[in-house]
Amino acid sequence: MTQPVDLRTNKPAIPAELLEALRNLLDDRFSTAPGLRAQHGTDESSYDPMLPDVVVFAQTTEEVADIVKLCNHYHVPVIPYGAGSSLEGHILALQGGVCLDLSQMNQMLAVHAEDLTATVQAGVTRKQLNLEIRDTGLFFPIDPGADATIGGMSATRASGTNAVRYGTMRENVMALTVVTADGRIIKTGSRAKKSSAGYDLTRLFVGSEGTLGVITEVTVKLYPLPEAISAAVCSFPDNHQAVSCVIQTIQMGIPVARVEFLDANGVKAINAYDKLSLPEKPLLLFEFHGSEHSVQEQAELVQEIASGYGAGDFEWATRPEDRSRLWAARHNAYFALLQLRHGARSISTDCCVPISRLAECISETQADCEQHAIVHSIIGHVGDGNFHVLMLVDPANEQEIQTAEAINQRMVTRAIAMDGTCTGEHGVGIHKMPFLIEEHGVDAIHMMRVLKHAFDPNNIMNPGKIIAWEATNS
Amino acid sequence: MTQPVDLRTNKPAIPAELLEALRNLLDDRFSTAPGLRAQHGTDESSYDPMLPDVVVFAQTTEEVADIVKLCNHYHVPVIPYGAGSSLEGHILALQGGVCLDLSQMNQMLAVHAEDLTATVQAGVTRKQLNLEIRDTGLFFPIDPGADATIGGMSATRASGTNAVRYGTMRENVMALTVVTADGRIIKTGSRAKKSSAGYDLTRLFVGSEGTLGVITEVTVKLYPLPEAISAAVCSFPDNHQAVSCVIQTIQMGIPVARVEFLDANGVKAINAYDKLSLPEKPLLLFEFHGSEHSVQEQAELVQEIASGYGAGDFEWATRPEDRSRLWAARHNAYFALLQLRHGARSISTDCCVPISRLAECISETQADCEQHAIVHSIIGHVGDGNFHVLMLVDPANEQEIQTAEAINQRMVTRAIAMDGTCTGEHGVGIHKMPFLIEEHGVDAIHMMRVLKHAFDPNNIMNPGKIIAWEATNS
Repeated sequence: MTQPVDLRTNKPAIPAELLEALRNLLDDRFSTAPGLRAQHGTDESSYDPMLPDVVVFAQTTEEVADIVKLCNHYHVPVIPYGAGSSLEGHILALQGGVCLDLSQMNQMLAVHAEDLTATVQAGVTRKQLNLEIRDTGLFFPIDPGADATIGGMSATRASGTNAVRYGTMRENVMALTVVTADGRIIKTGSRAKKSSAGYDLTRLFVGSEGTLGVITEVTVKLYPLPEAISAAVCSFPDNHQAVSCVIQTIQMGIPVARVEFLDANGVKAINAYDKLSLPEKPLLLFEFHGSEHSVQEQAELVQEIASGYGAGDFEWATRPEDRSRLWAARHNAYFALLQLRHGARSISTDCCVPISRLAECISETQADCEQHAIVHSIIGHVGDGNFHVLMLVDPANEQEIQTAEAINQRMVTRAIAMDGTCTGEHGVGIHKMPFLIEEHGVDAIHMMRVLKHAFDPNNIMNPGKIIAWEATNS
Repeated sequence: MTQPVDLRTNKPAIPAELLEALRNLLDDRFSTAPGLRAQHGTDESSYDPMLPDVVVFAQTTEEVADIVKLCNHYHVPVIPYGAGSSLEGHILALQGGVCLDLSQMNQMLAVHAEDLTATVQAGVTRKQLNLEIRDTGLFFPIDPGADATIGGMSATRASGTNAVRYGTMRENVMALTVVTADGRIIKTGSRAKKSSAGYDLTRLFVGSEGTLGVITEVTVKLYPLPEAISAAVCSFPDNHQAVSCVIQTIQMGIPVARVEFLDANGVKAINAYDKLSLPEKPLLLFEFHGSEHSVQEQAELVQEIASGYGAGDFEWATRPEDRSRLWAARHNAYFALLQLRHGARSISTDCCVPISRLAECISETQADCEQHAIVHSIIGHVGDGNFHVLMLVDPANEQEIQTAEAINQRMVTRAIAMDGTCTGEHGVGIHKMPFLIEEHGVDAIHMMRVLKHAFDPNNIMNPGKIIAWEATNS
């Protein structure tokens, strides 16, 4: 079949028959309204919007299969869409096509409290999940900043502040329902805690960013709410001392639940945004989970380590409302930081290194920012060796944007040279594609491409993300 | 290229040019000696041996690549071989070919104690690894019964008694070096604790049983030796009470390091084999890791739960030598049980279910064994919902073997119906292949086949394992 080409954009126009078939299938859950398309062609990255031709809202796995089959038949791109909170251009419609919005697939399918699992439709958000299970004494710990969907979090292999203790989506997704590029509905994994029954399709789809299929249902692990939780903040003379404290904590195997780093700029920003009065110095924000005894014991050990690195006293937040306030401030840090420079846009970065290299990687990156006079803040899930540099640039200043991107490139190269990764939790999207070869090597990328070609021979699944279709092009 | 066929076996004979090339490459690390071939065509399963045509011993990743390239050129099977301790027929040479023994690849490549990681050649065994890192204060927890190689354990997604606390090979392999079917050398993963940089090739090769490529190097996580360890055994009136105690322990989120179940026959067997004097009743064997306080706290909680299920007192093994003796006995259970019936062969099974279904699954399976008068014992890593039934059959009694296999089939069907898996840790090999469709469904198996065809288009990598090459055949 040949496809008509849209002469304005030089990309294939979406065939009228496909539009007709989708409209018949979905009725008022089909739209070509420019506003809706614009919203669905925009993520939280610094890229300009790229609009899909049409937005459809699915409500069941079977509908997703029907939509994908149609798109596969006409060789038209399908871009799965959850909350639109991705940061690296994941949902931009590079070649137009159909944006498949899963937000109406927001049903809880099963809560097996006795097995510590829940099965949800992909459009359920992490906050909704925790609300739905609030009476079970269990919780779902994975918390990227945004209230992302569980499907989207699976697709990007998301994590957040709790990962140091509870792992990422890689460790917490047990089973999936996936619609493949040819419209098959497959089930991967099971609710068994372990299995060696064949290829790990679950882990293959987790982190595949919609390029191998559409995740429609997810079974995740839940955890008993800890008997005791306590949180504390603690200030350090400089970044290096703060990070060194974290390194030693991790090396000693102290099972902290969360340990977050904010540099002085980060603290300043959340003080202003969240009306807090934290000392405007590099800060670690700890949370301890366990029994009363064990929480106390962990905290004492960490305090001892911290004081060895020149830390001030721990300031405790034991009341739930104080803890919530602190963590809300941490989760708002991105928005708080945007206020530091009026009219600025943030270029955010995301790398992760082995813990022993963390202080060095952060110091060198900080020096690079300072040398190039880029307004920035470093915050991070430092217990995992993962940190973000937010660089505040004037969107009208092309030179400044290029400087910031160059700092990002040097940071990624530095992280990879330390046997780290170009993205700890944000995913590849389009922004990190150039770094994948540097990280994995030509031959591993070749195998990723072999996989993509085998699973999606018509290149309809979120095309142009993670790896380029052609080897010469990547 | 056409291949000569061996008229005695009706399978392709290995071309003389390939033999010549391999001999030139490997010199005295190439052998066609019948004894060596017989050893390499035999695993710990109850299958009859199936011999490779030749055995080669590689010492470097580059040699593995050269061997695989040659075999791929001649379309001759390559069967990676570690310690030969697999249980489901994984290393049997169904179509002859080249057995690629990796046991001489036993070099430690790097120990990064400060990052809690080690990188080893695939032939390093788990005991060797722990011996090599004994001065670091760290350990590698994954412990299948046998002293398997780290490469083999990765390939079968192995686990063992520590998995309830530390996870399986799925969670503990960080990075791999793999030789693909066309002889490329790829690196997957990194030493970063988390990453969302593209498709998870690491998890794809973990559990692929040599059917997608040859694992030659493995980076694993290490853990600080706990400050305190204590172990205890505890007897119960019946299997159901013992298992119920475990279920409640897990549901409460008590972080036990190990909890193993042995039924009365199992206890009897290890008493005889290891000269112990445990009460010959269903038994749980616990181990607690942590600080002095936390170990004590965990133990108190579990004792309280146990007494609610009619348990006797905890008998403590706090001295390292007593603990070692207990765990050695547990690891020897397989061999101990073989002594229960003179001349018997064991048919062992391996299923895993969500923890809430464990008592039911074990009870029904036990009833099935008793109804059919099969001498058996049930032991298991019950904290994960994983258990093994060892059935002792007379190898000359075909009827008895068939009865045992039928019990296994019913058990697997039962486990899958409970949203469990046909194999918790032993892998698929050839023995579990018929159950994979039942567990995953036709369409998921189709995707596994798509993957196999894409990664190994000539079907040279351990052919005939995990999934059949042709859909009609599986």
